[in-house]
Amino acid sequence: MITVTAYDAETAFCQTIEDLHELDAIFAKWPTVWVQVREPEKPEVLKLISDAFRIHHLALEDVLTMHQRAKIEQYDDTFFIIVHELAVEDDDISTKQLCLFLGKNYVITFQFKELNSLNYISDRLGNNTGAIRTHGADYLASAVLDSVIDAYFPVLETLGEKLEDLEDEILENPSREVISEIHQAKRQLLTARRTLWPMREVINTLLRDASHSLSNEVRLHLRDCYDHTVELIDLIETYRELGADLMDVYLSSISNRMNEVMKVLTIIATVFAPPTLIAAIYGMNFNSAISPYNMPETNWYYGYPFILAVMLLGSISVLAFLWWKGWLGVMARRSPRE
Amino acid sequence: MITVTAYDAETAFCQTIEDLHELDAIFAKWPTVWVQVREPEKPEVLKLISDAFRIHHLALEDVLTMHQRAKIEQYDDTFFIIVHELAVEDDDISTKQLCLFLGKNYVITFQFKELNSLNYISDRLGNNTGAIRTHGADYLASAVLDSVIDAYFPVLETLGEKLEDLEDEILENPSREVISEIHQAKRQLLTARRTLWPMREVINTLLRDASHSLSNEVRLHLRDCYDHTVELIDLIETYRELGADLMDVYLSSISNRMNEVMKVLTIIATVFAPPTLIAAIYGMNFNSAISPYNMPETNWYYGYPFILAVMLLGSISVLAFLWWKGWLGVMARRSPRE
Amino acid sequence: MITVTAYDAETAFCQTIEDLHELDAIFAKWPTVWVQVREPEKPEVLKLISDAFRIHHLALEDVLTMHQRAKIEQYDDTFFIIVHELAVEDDDISTKQLCLFLGKNYVITFQFKELNSLNYISDRLGNNTGAIRTHGADYLASAVLDSVIDAYFPVLETLGEKLEDLEDEILENPSREVISEIHQAKRQLLTARRTLWPMREVINTLLRDASHSLSNEVRLHLRDCYDHTVELIDLIETYRELGADLMDVYLSSISNRMNEVMKVLTIIATVFAPPTLIAAIYGMNFNSAISPYNMPETNWYYGYPFILAVMLLGSISVLAFLWWKGWLGVMARRSPRE
Amino acid sequence: MITVTAYDAETAFCQTIEDLHELDAIFAKWPTVWVQVREPEKPEVLKLISDAFRIHHLALEDVLTMHQRAKIEQYDDTFFIIVHELAVEDDDISTKQLCLFLGKNYVITFQFKELNSLNYISDRLGNNTGAIRTHGADYLASAVLDSVIDAYFPVLETLGEKLEDLEDEILENPSREVISEIHQAKRQLLTARRTLWPMREVINTLLRDASHSLSNEVRLHLRDCYDHTVELIDLIETYRELGADLMDVYLSSISNRMNEVMKVLTIIATVFAPPTLIAAIYGMNFNSAISPYNMPETNWYYGYPFILAVMLLGSISVLAFLWWKGWLGVMARRSPRE
Amino acid sequence: MITVTAYDAETAFCQTIEDLHELDAIFAKWPTVWVQVREPEKPEVLKLISDAFRIHHLALEDVLTMHQRAKIEQYDDTFFIIVHELAVEDDDISTKQLCLFLGKNYVITFQFKELNSLNYISDRLGNNTGAIRTHGADYLASAVLDSVIDAYFPVLETLGEKLEDLEDEILENPSREVISEIHQAKRQLLTARRTLWPMREVINTLLRDASHSLSNEVRLHLRDCYDHTVELIDLIETYRELGADLMDVYLSSISNRMNEVMKVLTIIATVFAPPTLIAAIYGMNFNSAISPYNMPETNWYYGYPFILAVMLLGSISVLAFLWWKGWLGVMARRSPRE
Repeated sequence: MITVTAYDAETAFCQTIEDLHELDAIFAKWPTVWVQVREPEKPEVLKLISDAFRIHHLALEDVLTMHQRAKIEQYDDTFFIIVHELAVEDDDISTKQLCLFLGKNYVITFQFKELNSLNYISDRLGNNTGAIRTHGADYLASAVLDSVIDAYFPVLETLGEKLEDLEDEILENPSREVISEIHQAKRQLLTARRTLWPMREVINTLLRDASHSLSNEVRLHLRDCYDHTVELIDLIETYRELGADLMDVYLSSISNRMNEVMKVLTIIATVFAPPTLIAAIYGMNFNSAISPYNMPETNWYYGYPFILAVMLLGSISVLAFLWWKGWLGVMARRSPRE
Repeated sequence: MITVTAYDAETAFCQTIEDLHELDAIFAKWPTVWVQVREPEKPEVLKLISDAFRIHHLALEDVLTMHQRAKIEQYDDTFFIIVHELAVEDDDISTKQLCLFLGKNYVITFQFKELNSLNYISDRLGNNTGAIRTHGADYLASAVLDSVIDAYFPVLETLGEKLEDLEDEILENPSREVISEIHQAKRQLLTARRTLWPMREVINTLLRDASHSLSNEVRLHLRDCYDHTVELIDLIETYRELGADLMDVYLSSISNRMNEVMKVLTIIATVFAPPTLIAAIYGMNFNSAISPYNMPETNWYYGYPFILAVMLLGSISVLAFLWWKGWLGVMARRSPRE
Repeated sequence: MITVTAYDAETAFCQTIEDLHELDAIFAKWPTVWVQVREPEKPEVLKLISDAFRIHHLALEDVLTMHQRAKIEQYDDTFFIIVHELAVEDDDISTKQLCLFLGKNYVITFQFKELNSLNYISDRLGNNTGAIRTHGADYLASAVLDSVIDAYFPVLETLGEKLEDLEDEILENPSREVISEIHQAKRQLLTARRTLWPMREVINTLLRDASHSLSNEVRLHLRDCYDHTVELIDLIETYRELGADLMDVYLSSISNRMNEVMKVLTIIATVFAPPTLIAAIYGMNFNSAISPYNMPETNWYYGYPFILAVMLLGSISVLAFLWWKGWLGVMARRSPRE
Repeated sequence: MITVTAYDAETAFCQTIEDLHELDAIFAKWPTVWVQVREPEKPEVLKLISDAFRIHHLALEDVLTMHQRAKIEQYDDTFFIIVHELAVEDDDISTKQLCLFLGKNYVITFQFKELNSLNYISDRLGNNTGAIRTHGADYLASAVLDSVIDAYFPVLETLGEKLEDLEDEILENPSREVISEIHQAKRQLLTARRTLWPMREVINTLLRDASHSLSNEVRLHLRDCYDHTVELIDLIETYRELGADLMDVYLSSISNRMNEVMKVLTIIATVFAPPTLIAAIYGMNFNSAISPYNMPETNWYYGYPFILAVMLLGSISVLAFLWWKGWLGVMARRSPRE
Repeated sequence: MITVTAYDAETAFCQTIEDLHELDAIFAKWPTVWVQVREPEKPEVLKLISDAFRIHHLALEDVLTMHQRAKIEQYDDTFFIIVHELAVEDDDISTKQLCLFLGKNYVITFQFKELNSLNYISDRLGNNTGAIRTHGADYLASAVLDSVIDAYFPVLETLGEKLEDLEDEILENPSREVISEIHQAKRQLLTARRTLWPMREVINTLLRDASHSLSNEVRLHLRDCYDHTVELIDLIETYRELGADLMDVYLSSISNRMNEVMKVLTIIATVFAPPTLIAAIYGMNFNSAISPYNMPETNWYYGYPFILAVMLLGSISVLAFLWWKGWLGVMARRSPRE
């Protein structure tokens, strides 16, 4: 599926074409043309396009290979750029590859999946918002890059909020699922970083090398893009450190809970051990009839209640000791429901 | 709200204006003018300002966007600078964005919140302390930057003291809240670092690139600012390492406490197990009447006290063994009250 | 064993030779010659080759030394290159050294083990796939490098899948073997990294230094190789971070399981302690005949069932307390079968 | 308090002066003058000095601010240098600031505390050891820097020995205080590193920038100083890694000890559980008179000793099992006395 | 002790001299002279040597100071080089300092301890193996450096094997000594790294700066040395990461063992708790004569065996429950003998 958008400062024109030979007429009529190729899998179409725009076969191979690293390459007066859009999908992060050829008066984009950034630019061209129509192909390309980069911000914001939620959860009520969520967040940050770092190089190369072919306005625009990329990388590094830190906090919270479990066990064992021993002693087969030294309490009138009181006293002193040690608070705390 | 401060070496003049056209008269009369815009949210005011000073629309967008990265950009003979003030608010750290345009004979500042550094410079202009009045707009800008940077020192000092307090607390009496406080301190250090690193670049760029437009005195001043930024970054890195270290110390102190809980449990179990077994043995239904081998002690005159003594001896030998193993110290230590 | 492959754009010719003097005739007839030496251990053969191609004795030593670091060296108009092929063998990763001399019209390769990348190039030369035949010796060398690098991708993919499997295993069912598998994966990543980093330098040196001797097409090809190497290094670093993270997740999952074991122990101890104490109390030798205060329940008609009910109630209240604390879920979870 | 030391190759002259006007006569008479200002807190004295030597007000501010970062600045033909002496004081490390102005024929030093390095240089000037007297002010300054740097070596040696002691302690007998000592050592290393890194820059700047004003002999001397600084930084990094490693070793030794505590508990519980159960069984109210199946052993002549032997056998088999599991060694090990 | 080795392409001559004045005759007769000074502690000998070869006093100080950092310095046309030999001694690693002066036609080496690398070069000179005799003093120096570096390989191989042994030990049978062995290995790697990094700089400086005084053959040789140093550093970094990883694996294996100890304890407690409770219940003083509800089982004919069976059944169901939880495997595993 090939969509062609052509425009000058006044009007914009958009058409889905089947026959690539229609392109000649469009190029003849309009100063700037954007050829948008979706799901570029038909070999014969690709052959035609690459012949029409003299695309190097190595670049064409790159277009067809998924999961390329973002890069920029210059073939004669054409720039070949690969960047990635980041999107949240089903609670996970996905990257979508966008290949872009920037020539004198045209931009060709190749995409396998629906890309929001391209749709956004399409809409702006149609509605004539922003100043895209009044500039050339280089401005269109920089607008596409800008739109790709801007789409990173909401994704990272989502990740940042997730990390904050995790932080609250860990400090208040750390369940077992938290660890896999931290791990997932860290993996998503790694993915975002892997796509962003080379994108920064791409824009920097464009800014530095291309002083002659890009207009001043476009360069100011790209400088802004570059600032945004640096800001995003900053943000990712900050989030990564926060994530690593959360892992530590989680580990120490598990240890704290283990401490609590152990304390409960110790309290139970310690409170029941003395009365159980006393009870066992008075269960021994020493008959007070044989010797007056044999458990004289068993002959006392109030012997039994006295011994029960002794047991109670024993347990209470143990509790007092544990209270002095500061352990009793443990009994009043609940674990997270898992 | 727009406040205009104009001054020469002799006098300073400060006025809140409503109509931006008043600016022309002020510019005509005074050699240096400082336009201070608070809460720059009215679009029509911004439009007027940007027209009056020919501010590029990308810079204007940056002014209106919160949480920008500190940066410096040059538009013709105007510098556009974004930096952040750091402040302690409600036990947490907040950053406040300050946008500054430095022209030949004017400085424009945009702020969303009350900035102490700007108020401080205002006061110094009013009281004629320091040498601001005797220099031009570039000196005013460098004084603002200096004041912003100097405000970092007390904030970091507070953080440093907090870390020291936490250290004492962890080594003496580690409660459960400590971990979230370390975590918070580390996050605050990350925030401070994220604003400081680009600020260092800003000042460095100003120092290196602007050799022609800035006076020698201003450059000496900026070199001083630069030294302070480097010192602050040094301090932050040191604190960050201390913070990471504290996490380790805390983890090992939790483990130590777990060790203690386990020891208490083991001591209790070990002290009560032997007498409980002995008592259970003498509770068995072996009648000494049937065989002389059946618990002969039950027929002794002093059998019962003898067995009690044996129990006591058993517990005492266990305690002696535990003392030899060096475990008894645990019983005398208190946990932190939580 | 020496195999000679000679070709021009039309035909390719492949022969195993015994006598090195046959080489002269081949060189005279064909524009490009590839001499492939397997198991280069016969000293006299090596002597002949090094004499024929004037190979420096230091380079020859390197050829004979296993486990060299990848490197490139220039002797007059000859490049000497060492790189390593990565292969999965018996569930472990092995590296195989490939030494390559690139002269004006010849390529000499030395290999100790069977190398898939060389076989692949051999086949392509034989089948005339790709464009190798139409270019010179430099293109052949770059095709060999490309093939060596491309062989890293499936190996890393295998490692990536292994890490994902480990992740699933750790989060669901962490057995003891996982730790050694993570450790092994990390060691394999270290191996891959140790061979890749210098290979990147090799290709970069070739790209930068050799501007004069390499054709433009070859340089485009090498730029592609370089991009692949950078991508591989990116991937390795990402995997290494994931591996480090998995170690943390594993540690916290062990701690979680310890917590569970402790909880089970505590539940058991807590549920059985109260009824055991009660039973022990009613086993004491206080005779209700001596005093009405001595265990009056023993004389009740329903005394025994009443006490049993009290015991049951005790255990049930304990269980209720533990349920309130959120600990009972532990009893329903299974450990991994080890 | 101001001490002036003036010297030529033949003699040295040292005097404490009150009136700064005496300086003129001294400068007129001697080729090289060293003005040493202790506790520079009187504003009027500072004013006089800064006037006499035309010291920039920013440099003067730096002199009066404690805890500056080491730095070098050039004002016309004067170098302004801040470095720090490191000293062991009361088992802790302290840094003392030294400010130094190096002019054509003079050196001015400002110090708040007694500095050993300055005293050492004073003594050498007095005793004419070393070759200070035969060179100019630049040599004096480099001798001061050398002396400051050399004072780091014994301090680091002390830290190194402390780390070795801690290592022995951890491996043999880890008490609870160790963790705070490791932490303290790491903090001291951070302090030393924070003063050393900028000092390296100071000397490097002096070496590189000052090619014209410094004599060749002085530059050789400074190269030596630079080597020492690099060596010190190397040493600090090594110690820091050792310290981090010690933390890990300590954590694993705590875990090992916990293991031991748990084993002791398990041994006790395991050895006492079987005989206690047996004893409880024979305490049940099954009368052998009612049924011959009711505890027939209670009617045996040797029943009681037989049952005791069974109990013993039970405990011994448990011990044998534990010995087979390799756990009994734990009982013979002592914990550290705390 | 001073040994002089002099040689030309034909013959080599070796003599121990007492009187340094003999050197003049030797220098007059031979084109290349190697003066080997062992234990350079006699000040008068040093004085003579430094006078004879005009050695700078700073270099001489360095010769006499142990534990210098490896470095290279150029005094006029003489290179002064410090490097370290690494050797395994008594199961530990030791570094031995080698100082070397390289002049036009001479090499002077200073050593405090016996250095294998120097002996090896001595032997090669004597036996005329390698091509040392046919080249000048610069080749001799590079041969010495090469020999010093080559001696690192076996030492690192030993360390590598030790790490592999430790890995096997940790995964199969982690005893308490492992941690100190890992720690020792990591310390030894730190030592090796501390001597290697500056050595790399030394060789790099020699390669880059000395283009004019060193022959082409020597530079090829040094390039090879440089490659070896880089390879060694690579190896050390890899080993260091493996070592850090082993620490983690060890920690997790301790935790795993703790888990096992806890499980054994829990199994024991869980298996014995139910029958002990049952036995205690039947030991209560409820007489079946008083009420038919009082333990009717005690009056059954098969009551006792029935109750024993109930106890057995209770324990067996507990074991079945634990088997279902997957815990029983623990009982069959042995701990390492310590």
